[in-house]
Amino acid sequence: MKIGIIGGTGKEGRGLALRWSAAGHEITLASRDAERGAAVAAELSAASGRAIAGGSFDDALAAAEVLLVAVPYSGQGDTYRQLAGRIGDRIIIDITVPLAPPKVTQVSLPAGHSAAMEAQAILGDEGKLVATLHHVSSTHLGDLEHEMEGDVLVCGNDRAAVETVIGLIGDLGARGIDAGNLVNAVALESMTPVLLYINRRYKAAGAGMKLTGLP
Amino acid sequence: MKIGIIGGTGKEGRGLALRWSAAGHEITLASRDAERGAAVAAELSAASGRAIAGGSFDDALAAAEVLLVAVPYSGQGDTYRQLAGRIGDRIIIDITVPLAPPKVTQVSLPAGHSAAMEAQAILGDEGKLVATLHHVSSTHLGDLEHEMEGDVLVCGNDRAAVETVIGLIGDLGARGIDAGNLVNAVALESMTPVLLYINRRYKAAGAGMKLTGLP
Repeated sequence: MKIGIIGGTGKEGRGLALRWSAAGHEITLASRDAERGAAVAAELSAASGRAIAGGSFDDALAAAEVLLVAVPYSGQGDTYRQLAGRIGDRIIIDITVPLAPPKVTQVSLPAGHSAAMEAQAILGDEGKLVATLHHVSSTHLGDLEHEMEGDVLVCGNDRAAVETVIGLIGDLGARGIDAGNLVNAVALESMTPVLLYINRRYKAAGAGMKLTGLP
Repeated sequence: MKIGIIGGTGKEGRGLALRWSAAGHEITLASRDAERGAAVAAELSAASGRAIAGGSFDDALAAAEVLLVAVPYSGQGDTYRQLAGRIGDRIIIDITVPLAPPKVTQVSLPAGHSAAMEAQAILGDEGKLVATLHHVSSTHLGDLEHEMEGDVLVCGNDRAAVETVIGLIGDLGARGIDAGNLVNAVALESMTPVLLYINRRYKAAGAGMKLTGLP
């Protein structure tokens, strides 16, 4: 698939670009600063030996069938307001976790209960919003040799879009699990500070979760 | 330890009483209806061959070093208002999940964000509130032959109380994990509707979660 990664120059965006391009997807890595987007894409292309495109948000909107937003929570609202009206019926994958530094090991609920629901409120009926990848360590994502042990929970109101994203999670090397409607994003997002606490408390590098009891 | 289970006649309370008494703890199973508390305790004692006491909330308050509240969310506020002023500095374990029937597979945040924080607001500075056991199937709890695969996340503001409860979780046959301050209860509680969704979606009997990446 043609995937545009909005805010793709961060650690998560880079790791996703590397893993998905290795799986055969066409990536456009988009930054607010088009030159930076292009530079990081060129760097990743050189390192991986696979062509990864890079540029502006407009470039990603022009090229991509599926969009993924990987920006800090503090910039999430602005980013969605820039994208609003230009997404159409595409799938838009949100991986935002509303952390409140410096207390990143304590849940801090946003006014709209979850970053995903706040994004949905900005987009209205536009796009098929799917929230996922809240619990994957960006270090693990970027290290293609690292086998991802934890399951990746995926929620959204459009079940076909959720299934498409579960397929894309499989292409990252992890097992995607349908976690219900978008309202359930509050559970997924708020588990991240808990995992960050567990990392600190148990000196773990990147705690995740695997489901038990599935048939 | 001497453990009083408030609302102990339900499935969770019965399972906890059986597992903890098998581990050597002294249980008082307390119901709003003292006769029912005594009757269920007698039934469990006969079935297990171990003495389990039963009676009223007052009986549990008189006998127990540690209290556990196992009531439906709809009755939680009333229960804590009955207990308030009588807990002292004891540990009080809350296992409430704020489900909103019939939509039990969708997160429904209470006004106070979590049932545990609402309980804390009623108790004020009294007691050492610890929230846990949100993800354990009551059927699995009650079946002593069932090996509990999932980890049990435990949160609270008093770290010594959390460690005590982690020990008690071990006595149930599960691994307890420190999940941070009580504010993190929102993550633990809101994951339950997600697991109920996953049960339905994947035809699982009692999905749980096991942490990955711990040393």
